[in-house]
Amino acid sequence: MSVLSLYRQVSVIGAGMTRFHHRVHQDKQGRELFVEAALEAAESVDRGFTFGDADALYLGYFSSDMFERQGHTAALMADWLGMNPKPAYRVEDACASSGVAVNAGVQAIASGMCDVVVVGGVEKMRTLGTSEVTDTLALAADANYEVGVGFTFPGLYAAIASAHFNKHGSTWEQLQQVAIKNHVNGKKNPKAQYQETIKEIADKLGERKGMSFRDEMEFLRSPLNPVVASPLRLFDCCPISDGAAAVILAADDVAEKYTDTPVRVAGIGQASDTMALHDRDDFTSLRAACVAARQAYNMAGVEARSIDTACVHDCFTIAEVVATEDLGFFARGEGSKAASEGRTALDGEMPVNPDGGLKAKGHPVGATGAAMVYEMFKQLRGQAGEHQVADAEVGLTHNVGAAGATVSVQIYRRG
Amino acid sequence: MSVLSLYRQVSVIGAGMTRFHHRVHQDKQGRELFVEAALEAAESVDRGFTFGDADALYLGYFSSDMFERQGHTAALMADWLGMNPKPAYRVEDACASSGVAVNAGVQAIASGMCDVVVVGGVEKMRTLGTSEVTDTLALAADANYEVGVGFTFPGLYAAIASAHFNKHGSTWEQLQQVAIKNHVNGKKNPKAQYQETIKEIADKLGERKGMSFRDEMEFLRSPLNPVVASPLRLFDCCPISDGAAAVILAADDVAEKYTDTPVRVAGIGQASDTMALHDRDDFTSLRAACVAARQAYNMAGVEARSIDTACVHDCFTIAEVVATEDLGFFARGEGSKAASEGRTALDGEMPVNPDGGLKAKGHPVGATGAAMVYEMFKQLRGQAGEHQVADAEVGLTHNVGAAGATVSVQIYRRG
Repeated sequence: MSVLSLYRQVSVIGAGMTRFHHRVHQDKQGRELFVEAALEAAESVDRGFTFGDADALYLGYFSSDMFERQGHTAALMADWLGMNPKPAYRVEDACASSGVAVNAGVQAIASGMCDVVVVGGVEKMRTLGTSEVTDTLALAADANYEVGVGFTFPGLYAAIASAHFNKHGSTWEQLQQVAIKNHVNGKKNPKAQYQETIKEIADKLGERKGMSFRDEMEFLRSPLNPVVASPLRLFDCCPISDGAAAVILAADDVAEKYTDTPVRVAGIGQASDTMALHDRDDFTSLRAACVAARQAYNMAGVEARSIDTACVHDCFTIAEVVATEDLGFFARGEGSKAASEGRTALDGEMPVNPDGGLKAKGHPVGATGAAMVYEMFKQLRGQAGEHQVADAEVGLTHNVGAAGATVSVQIYRRG
Repeated sequence: MSVLSLYRQVSVIGAGMTRFHHRVHQDKQGRELFVEAALEAAESVDRGFTFGDADALYLGYFSSDMFERQGHTAALMADWLGMNPKPAYRVEDACASSGVAVNAGVQAIASGMCDVVVVGGVEKMRTLGTSEVTDTLALAADANYEVGVGFTFPGLYAAIASAHFNKHGSTWEQLQQVAIKNHVNGKKNPKAQYQETIKEIADKLGERKGMSFRDEMEFLRSPLNPVVASPLRLFDCCPISDGAAAVILAADDVAEKYTDTPVRVAGIGQASDTMALHDRDDFTSLRAACVAARQAYNMAGVEARSIDTACVHDCFTIAEVVATEDLGFFARGEGSKAASEGRTALDGEMPVNPDGGLKAKGHPVGATGAAMVYEMFKQLRGQAGEHQVADAEVGLTHNVGAAGATVSVQIYRRG
């Protein structure tokens, strides 16, 4: 594959996010969540920033239509940020919406049209009940050939898990270490939805039910962790969340006006795959992730072994395992074993989802890609607090739409 | 305002569209409509084109969620076009979705990431009944402060019309000449939804009801043209339509491989305004249109007097009048009079909407911006058939989201 290149280099100069949560934002609309995240991003810019400095807004929002009966949300957010008359683009690529918005924003700067752009994402999901949310999320799958015959996302990822178990001999027990590790990380992240280990949750739930659990695995095997779509159980799935995240991008030659410690966008990649899972030759890998990662590695001039930490799209435990293989962190079929051996822990050789990932941090779908960039901005500047990865200089973000019909990958480097 | 510039120049090398219609596409889904338009675009490329040649897809679709219970439509369309694994972006800015997608596609090429991109739009609206369509379109207005208190778009544009009448002394009778002229043009356009003059429609409807009309105006004043939102009546409003349009953009240095007669993208502009109409100082102009036009004029190095023909966003008759003032074709307050004097007719000094406009051609909202580019591609290559504007060398497209919270403008030049 040829090395794609940008005419101008881009850096992240600020980042903000709301806490992700299923309850605490109950009284807020999407617009209020996004403004909260964007204001924090502006405040994080070392030498000051006002929204009048920005040349455009790129917003990821998956389904404002269903969740808030509101379309045209980019113009709405530009209005609420006082950015008029600057142009505003809403980008929707399912759960990859704001990862894709980052790529669009980078291209806007590299094209010469913009010097500075605000990129972010939001999803206000808890306007609907759980089953309506599941139905809305299923809009990201193929209405004709998947949803119409009963598939929703837990089912699609269950098929991926089954295929992985079958082909590589990986096990459900190994997958549990992904969830356990991500809750350990989430406990250290003040923005995370769940700031508790699974053991702590097990103890709390057990107490209510008059049950006690020796360890996480006993809880995870219990009826308190019911099967959602075999082999996936409740704790294999990320939660439903409200939240927003925003980052501020600037051309490298402009970034120095704002900060001495920018985070460089070293490489970007994006790819598509068949909408329906059944159209693919292999379920155990997301082809779009492999292609997008190769583009980003080539542009950045690095390989997987150079990545110090990564935020990957763990909408289900199996998704994190597949991601770590697709990105080349572990050999094909070894991701599950690597996770179970602690190699992706905060102090492991390849810390994955130091912020708790979608599993513990939460997954307001349109916000997730931008929240990954937020995390990298903090990690690569050494500002990630208790969940800081030691000496993180190069980081990667991996944001997946649906079952991999869209994947964006970005590589960031300490400035 | 500074002159924005692109690092690389871009041309249109192909364009296609379905017929726009409320009935003939009844059995087709949005994906089928888009593929039909995209295949025609590919076939229009002089020296041949396959979708494997493209580096990305940018798709405008306003509300696939509501109309088709389908999200993630960019990936879906990329799949149906055989474009995998090329990246696909869905862009949504209300009725400006595909005009905005064109700007995103131009930026992708200018950034260095792409040489060739497919840009298009689609809307499959006739899955819902008329009142549900009106409710869905209202998602583009402010859910809190407009829709929540009873405003839908006919009401918002009625307020704009009333303000224009009040401030400039323009009249409802003058507005009717916009509709009459656009139906005259639509009759000459084989892609148009209504290929009949208003007089022909009046005669047909009159016959059914045992009524006869001396001329269009008698019909337009009759109960067969009921008030929708005073002062706007049914024939002041564009229809509900199904349809799709697609264009193929290439870097100028690559375009020569495909054609000797590209159409250059000479200038692009885009701006936002307040989401709610009531937040503006003046209803008689769309500020975002003025800003976007100024950007595009500056980039192209031309002024309004250089434009030979324009496709403007006439979702309502008043919208075309305001557009011709905002774009500088006529002095402020003179647009209505100019229309009534025939100055915007196909053989007038400034032919506006030679394809019939949204009024007669139809308005499948996500497709409209791309369909305007389709028309310019034909006009500037002298291939517009019966509705060809004589000696058209420089053309303009003006695509509005909602009541002007988003506006994109592009200027095209014969290559």
